Amino acid sequence: MGKMFVGIDLGGTNIKIGLFDAELKLINNTSVATQADMGPDVVIGKMAETVEKLLAEANLPLSDVVAVGIGTPGPAKYSEGVIIKSTNMPTFKNVPICKMLNDKLGKPIVFDNDANVACFGEYAVGAGQGVKDMVFFTLGTGIGGGIISNGELVHGCAENAAELGHMIIYPDGRTCNCGQKGCVEAYASADSTARRATEAVEAGAESSLKKVLDKKGRITSKDIYQHLVEGDSLAKEITDGTAKALAITCINMLHTTEPKRIVFAGGMIAAGDVLLGRIQEYFDEYIWTLKKEPVEICFATLGEDAGIIGAAALAKHNCPA
Amino acid sequence: MGKMFVGIDLGGTNIKIGLFDAELKLINNTSVATQADMGPDVVIGKMAETVEKLLAEANLPLSDVVAVGIGTPGPAKYSEGVIIKSTNMPTFKNVPICKMLNDKLGKPIVFDNDANVACFGEYAVGAGQGVKDMVFFTLGTGIGGGIISNGELVHGCAENAAELGHMIIYPDGRTCNCGQKGCVEAYASADSTARRATEAVEAGAESSLKKVLDKKGRITSKDIYQHLVEGDSLAKEITDGTAKALAITCINMLHTTEPKRIVFAGGMIAAGDVLLGRIQEYFDEYIWTLKKEPVEICFATLGEDAGIIGAAALAKHNCPA
Repeated sequence: MGKMFVGIDLGGTNIKIGLFDAELKLINNTSVATQADMGPDVVIGKMAETVEKLLAEANLPLSDVVAVGIGTPGPAKYSEGVIIKSTNMPTFKNVPICKMLNDKLGKPIVFDNDANVACFGEYAVGAGQGVKDMVFFTLGTGIGGGIISNGELVHGCAENAAELGHMIIYPDGRTCNCGQKGCVEAYASADSTARRATEAVEAGAESSLKKVLDKKGRITSKDIYQHLVEGDSLAKEITDGTAKALAITCINMLHTTEPKRIVFAGGMIAAGDVLLGRIQEYFDEYIWTLKKEPVEICFATLGEDAGIIGAAALAKHNCPA
Repeated sequence: MGKMFVGIDLGGTNIKIGLFDAELKLINNTSVATQADMGPDVVIGKMAETVEKLLAEANLPLSDVVAVGIGTPGPAKYSEGVIIKSTNMPTFKNVPICKMLNDKLGKPIVFDNDANVACFGEYAVGAGQGVKDMVFFTLGTGIGGGIISNGELVHGCAENAAELGHMIIYPDGRTCNCGQKGCVEAYASADSTARRATEAVEAGAESSLKKVLDKKGRITSKDIYQHLVEGDSLAKEITDGTAKALAITCINMLHTTEPKRIVFAGGMIAAGDVLLGRIQEYFDEYIWTLKKEPVEICFATLGEDAGIIGAAALAKHNCPA
């Protein structure tokens, strides 16, 4: 088989693990319950066993594995391989996950935060292929990010670079979960988009979304895009607010690390062209006219597997065979 | 003497040239008129002659020079060593400056834009010493910038990264020279700061700056800081607007490339602590409270020589002896 890489996406509920060949093609993969309450020893032991099981199923020896990549939410000292703590895994406190997994598998372990890992996956084999400078946004409950500059992830001085959801675009604007005011996340995440719609309906705006709120007690971003397609004007206004906030953020990234491609991922991209098209329109409206900018704005292509693919891609990048 | 580096700051009016030892200590330096109207051949010939003259004055052989760095405003294809055109040097069109100077001196030529070069100078031997992640702003007529990430300048996909003055912080705000609305440059450059004060006085604001406007026909940023120290409330309000815009931009850079240090340079820093203190206060007020951020905000230390020092530092970085 030659050289292989393992990608692990460690979440609070599930651990996803994939086995990849040297071209980062998936050989096989699986998902097991994290059961963080059992403690780090058990969880990391299960990670190692699952890797061995995937290898056995594929009739491949552990010796063919070059390196293992892990992505997980922080806070962590990624360069030191230590999870400091975890909201979703309360038993994980100052856990030297890289050393512990290396003890079991005897392989180099590459470790980074989940957004960086997904970013690197898109860069290596997804929507970012073929460029060396890329910016990545995940549009979910919050907005996460990743930056690739000249082919490398930007980590920053304390490994907290690319907290792109917390760029302030409206000083003194809406309060964000982080405590700042006017963050792009406070306007354009799935949750904030839904919240802005809910507030507008509650304030008396005419909208077909009112029925949704009355019936379900809440409005989701999915509802908004559906009602937008059906012609609701509030849904359009709310979507415009999201798209404009994202477009301004794209412009700011262009003037910062100057990506060739900006890739959006996360649940919100299910909205499709109705969202992407508006982001591009606002971008074109608000960007300077000094020159034609080379940036391409697009959606991610790896979907749910970005975590395992990205972890394997990062393992390959940092530990080439 | 050992190994030496030459730093050249090519401007529309003067060419500054410095000769530096391996520790980037200045050996000697000079400034000659650019006389761009004589054309690129003459100008670049003069650069080479001046380098040789500096070497002769110091009794040092050309063979001791390892590499030459040049900084100049764009637009240019820096990685290809070509000045595309120049506002201040109209005779410079598609000039392969690196090849032309290399033909004369026989040394590797390193080439970058003036803001990146000054940024790298501060990073190597100025206010950025000791960190690997830094952001640099020049506060002059406009606002320029530079980004160092993990010890390297960020150039971007088309060599136009770090146009930090054109980050939008007030969407639909003041129109910038670049055509965008709400750029930080439209609020916080020396020119914009002066313009905001002038507009306020003309609109009837009470201020001791009115006498300045009546007498000189204009208000400069220097006037504003002087009147601020003397207790003028409009001068304080205008300075606050500048400081807040810069602080928001610092926060956005922190959430982007996460610098350890943010360095301000340019004419405006003559304002001193009255400006730096307010930037820090707004930063502390607007930054999230999730954690104590590690960033240090300070002023540049190299002054007018940043261009030649930075060019030599970049030459040393890219062509170590």
